[in-house]
Amino acid sequence: MGNADDHMNSYNLDAAASHRVAIPPPQPFIKSLKNTLKETFFPDDPLRQFKNQPPRRKLLLGLQYVFPIVQWGPQYTWQFLKADLIAGITIASLAIPQGISYAKLANLPPILGLYSSFVPPLVYAVMGSSRDLAVGTVAVGSLLTASMLGKVVNVVENPDLYLHLAFTATFFAGVFEASLGIFRLGFIVDFLSHATIVGFMGGAATVVCLQQLKGILGLKHFTHETDVISVLRSVFSQTHEWRWESAVLGCVFLFYLLISRLFSKKKPNLFWVSAMAPLTSVILGSLVVYLTHAEDHGVQVIGELKKGINPGSIMDLNFDSRYLPTAIKTGIVTGVIALAEGIAVGRSFAMFKNYHIDGNKEMIAFGMMNIAGSCTYCYLTAGPFSRSAVNFNAGCKTAVSNIVMAIAVMITLLFLTPLFHYTPLVVLSSIIVAAMLGLIDYEAAIHLWHVDKFDFVVCMSAYIGVVFANIEIGLVMAIGLSVVRVLLFVARPKTLVLGNIPDSKVYRNVDQYQNAQCVPGILILEIDAPIYFANSNYLRERISRWIDDEEDRIKSTGETELQCIILDMSAVGNIDTSGISMLEEVKKTVDRRGLKLGLANPGGEVMKKLNKSKFLETMGEEWIFLTVGEAVGACNYMLHTTNPKLDSNSDLSLKYSHNV
Amino acid sequence: MGNADDHMNSYNLDAAASHRVAIPPPQPFIKSLKNTLKETFFPDDPLRQFKNQPPRRKLLLGLQYVFPIVQWGPQYTWQFLKADLIAGITIASLAIPQGISYAKLANLPPILGLYSSFVPPLVYAVMGSSRDLAVGTVAVGSLLTASMLGKVVNVVENPDLYLHLAFTATFFAGVFEASLGIFRLGFIVDFLSHATIVGFMGGAATVVCLQQLKGILGLKHFTHETDVISVLRSVFSQTHEWRWESAVLGCVFLFYLLISRLFSKKKPNLFWVSAMAPLTSVILGSLVVYLTHAEDHGVQVIGELKKGINPGSIMDLNFDSRYLPTAIKTGIVTGVIALAEGIAVGRSFAMFKNYHIDGNKEMIAFGMMNIAGSCTYCYLTAGPFSRSAVNFNAGCKTAVSNIVMAIAVMITLLFLTPLFHYTPLVVLSSIIVAAMLGLIDYEAAIHLWHVDKFDFVVCMSAYIGVVFANIEIGLVMAIGLSVVRVLLFVARPKTLVLGNIPDSKVYRNVDQYQNAQCVPGILILEIDAPIYFANSNYLRERISRWIDDEEDRIKSTGETELQCIILDMSAVGNIDTSGISMLEEVKKTVDRRGLKLGLANPGGEVMKKLNKSKFLETMGEEWIFLTVGEAVGACNYMLHTTNPKLDSNSDLSLKYSHNV
Repeated sequence: MGNADDHMNSYNLDAAASHRVAIPPPQPFIKSLKNTLKETFFPDDPLRQFKNQPPRRKLLLGLQYVFPIVQWGPQYTWQFLKADLIAGITIASLAIPQGISYAKLANLPPILGLYSSFVPPLVYAVMGSSRDLAVGTVAVGSLLTASMLGKVVNVVENPDLYLHLAFTATFFAGVFEASLGIFRLGFIVDFLSHATIVGFMGGAATVVCLQQLKGILGLKHFTHETDVISVLRSVFSQTHEWRWESAVLGCVFLFYLLISRLFSKKKPNLFWVSAMAPLTSVILGSLVVYLTHAEDHGVQVIGELKKGINPGSIMDLNFDSRYLPTAIKTGIVTGVIALAEGIAVGRSFAMFKNYHIDGNKEMIAFGMMNIAGSCTYCYLTAGPFSRSAVNFNAGCKTAVSNIVMAIAVMITLLFLTPLFHYTPLVVLSSIIVAAMLGLIDYEAAIHLWHVDKFDFVVCMSAYIGVVFANIEIGLVMAIGLSVVRVLLFVARPKTLVLGNIPDSKVYRNVDQYQNAQCVPGILILEIDAPIYFANSNYLRERISRWIDDEEDRIKSTGETELQCIILDMSAVGNIDTSGISMLEEVKKTVDRRGLKLGLANPGGEVMKKLNKSKFLETMGEEWIFLTVGEAVGACNYMLHTTNPKLDSNSDLSLKYSHNV
Repeated sequence: MGNADDHMNSYNLDAAASHRVAIPPPQPFIKSLKNTLKETFFPDDPLRQFKNQPPRRKLLLGLQYVFPIVQWGPQYTWQFLKADLIAGITIASLAIPQGISYAKLANLPPILGLYSSFVPPLVYAVMGSSRDLAVGTVAVGSLLTASMLGKVVNVVENPDLYLHLAFTATFFAGVFEASLGIFRLGFIVDFLSHATIVGFMGGAATVVCLQQLKGILGLKHFTHETDVISVLRSVFSQTHEWRWESAVLGCVFLFYLLISRLFSKKKPNLFWVSAMAPLTSVILGSLVVYLTHAEDHGVQVIGELKKGINPGSIMDLNFDSRYLPTAIKTGIVTGVIALAEGIAVGRSFAMFKNYHIDGNKEMIAFGMMNIAGSCTYCYLTAGPFSRSAVNFNAGCKTAVSNIVMAIAVMITLLFLTPLFHYTPLVVLSSIIVAAMLGLIDYEAAIHLWHVDKFDFVVCMSAYIGVVFANIEIGLVMAIGLSVVRVLLFVARPKTLVLGNIPDSKVYRNVDQYQNAQCVPGILILEIDAPIYFANSNYLRERISRWIDDEEDRIKSTGETELQCIILDMSAVGNIDTSGISMLEEVKKTVDRRGLKLGLANPGGEVMKKLNKSKFLETMGEEWIFLTVGEAVGACNYMLHTTNPKLDSNSDLSLKYSHNV
């Protein structure tokens, strides 16, 4: 070994001195901690624009940061107002029937749907950073509210308590959302992956559609469970109560709504046909009932709606310790789901128009809007996809369209509520079904199947969990699976054998590159993940197995004996103390087998820790290489100088050792 | 753009055609699923040796796999027996007092400590794959049993129920351990990192030491809590009951034990001085009590121990539904902790002697040994570090030393138990304290602080959780933090700017390599983790921020305008659908800014998914490069041909485009 080492050292000094793997310059602990915290919590560097600005300007920038309206308000033009006016009125025409429908879905008084389309949009218009999001109640949030609160309070027996808990849950949802934003924890929402959301939304939409069978069939009793089996049992156990008048009305309107949507999809500039359809249905339905007195023939109607804008509800918040856990849990779950949907919707429209949505800022806006809502007789609001899409298609320019919608709703609240007296519930059910069918995104699920099977499994488990168990189980299953996937990626990293790409000094995975050629006598392994406690045992065993396999293969083919193991560390982003122990053990094992171990291209973090743990000394710095190519060169040189029988390969090895 | 594209295409066709990034050949879904499952559950490929063997040989190999004794038994020699005999007797002399002490720690009759050193070692000798592990009860497992069962059953009021629940918990621990092994889920134990174990063991040892104040001070009443505050309060609230006779005796023996350990550490070949010290203490202590009648002066003694070997206890297993959850929970927690310690101990000694420990096989052995133990009046056993270290130092060769120990314990049980009648409890407390002090590995904690701050935090949180709250909280905190760390690694991957290492075509992180030079007009970013839903939003924002920063910098220095962004994907091991959407969005953003986007060296998994999702088509395959060097070459070529003002750089760019 002494001889080989001498050769190695002179080789390094001569040829590769300029190519040492650098250990990053040491950083004081406080500085590196600060950097880490900054990257974790302030990846978007929000304070950047404040740098080197006079105090007045800083104040203005601060105001603009908290209230984006201060930023875009001064540049607002008449052109914008015209566009926003049209968009605002369009979404108001959708918001009124949808608001009433979703409030029914949440088992809350219908008027809450209107209240919730008045105050929260105004708050969002001032604080939100999306120009396209239309604020209002959301189907999934409504359903979740009903199912989670319904477990604790019977809405029929105790409607007031139920109502107050709904406000309290909204309050906690707002507090939770705002705190996520304030404490820069927005990334928690990122753990709801696209696949999870597709499955979850699809499942929730399926459940919501099934629930509408109650309205469409004119049933009076219905299960409080949301799973498909309970619902179907409930529907088919009371076939004698089905009302054909109601069913016919429902199907007609559903048909009309779907057709109008199809029409608008074909001709995007006629978006208003579909956007106006719900309001038209409500008006037509109400007229039919009023004229035919269908309310006496089993068609249920909304009944009296109170005139006037939102009353205060701050005194109605219920912090009774018996109900507090339920209220907090409902708040957190609905709040997170609302955020996830709202931010995803906001981001997709921002993509189209090429502006930026700040996730943490949006969370604060959503939070404040729900806190304000909970004090003004509103329940959970967010940015529903259907309404925002209509807003976008109607050509909205800024959040002023939300203000216009709020004013339109206010006018309705003040003067027009009596008009909804005869609105049949079955029309509302049709509106909900039509909206929900759009949320079952089976095309996205098929796409997931094609591109990533695991994402598909996550998506389907969310769907099946929601449809067959309940909403929370579906969500927990999907998030759990997603996290397990991340952990499995780290626990079972890929180890790949690399070979030389002909006519280059590049080494790549032989499974991916069919033309890559293994280097005789050298086994090159790439480790494809950070080396952590969770995978260090696995990696140790896997590396041993690679060496065993390679030696078996060589024995059976009679090739050059295995002499060197090179670990390509390019993809090893980090290492912990368990990982370093693993490397030490691998080094011992390899030494004991009489082989040489080289590391290629360890990154900065890894080098730092290898250095601190003295592993670099154990290893010998001359065995750490900048590239796989140099490592192979050095190994070949060593094989060549210590192993005369390999002379036939000398051309190759010389070429490598001199050209690096 | 058309012009540039034409150039690009011809450039690619001419120079780089052989260096296309390959898409791995498609695999049938079933095959890739099978591969993934195999890597996850059978990374060590246990069936490998069975391949191409005749049935007789397969049977033998199978027997050897399940019962390693069949493998090493036939090669057993007299030499081995001599060594194992010495080691076995040595560990028996340690096992007897330790067994009695730990049984007291678990609030179980002292005789159980002896029973537990008889049957389980025999089972392990047949099934275990470690040659150095000495089987017996463990301090932490005993403490955990006491604290978890103690919450549900008062041992003083209901000793029989407590005893039966201890058997039941042991049974479930065995079942759980064996199933982990059988279902190849051994990697779950890997989630207990080294740092967690150091902190947890240190905390448990501290708690156990504090608990011994009861025995040393001769107290009769003591708290059932394990946290330091309750214990100290309990000790100092009854200062009037402290017995000086007991305290003096305890301190003398503790001093003797520690001195003998220090001595053996200095002279490793006198290991038996320390190994025999506990037994010597017991004998001396018993003699002192017998001669001075100290039991009448406040020195508590063990009292009568039943003669005879283990009675059966299979009928004592208690599956009453009231206690079942406690028994199962205790079984799982103690079982996992026992496994983690036992396997870590087994592996470290196997490392020294260069043989291999199969984690899953060990789990099955541990499981069977505890199931057998639970039916023969034993409680939880594992491989305690102290006993195994003595075994190793005494020169054991195979698991026969465990058989020798079991026989020695059997002889003790049959004939010698009356000798322990006068053994003072305080001596047992001294033995426990002396053993526990060795488990507080402060040096390892300091090492963690130096090498990896986060590991240190995990370690300390386990320690503090165990000492100030309780054992389970400490464990949950430490595992939780470890998992959060893995998730944070994925949620906040590093993005690094790469520069050219002079005199090479290699590109490396400019922070690590001070001499790396950025390429004018090109921003090269390396992404350091798989692109998953958990980080895709972050990465999109971070990449935008890098581009902003770079453009700001260029504006202020007046360098060549930014034209190309190259993403080095070498370290991106995998991508999911959210990640692909992220890339699509980055591509759009970059296009909109009038920049070019290139990807360098995407791996096999990534290429497969980019291809399936049609992103490759959007991107243009000519913008995917084998190496960063080639990507830079292509960008420079493009800059050169489309941007005449860059002619001064033409040498450089030509060099790049022709040399790749």
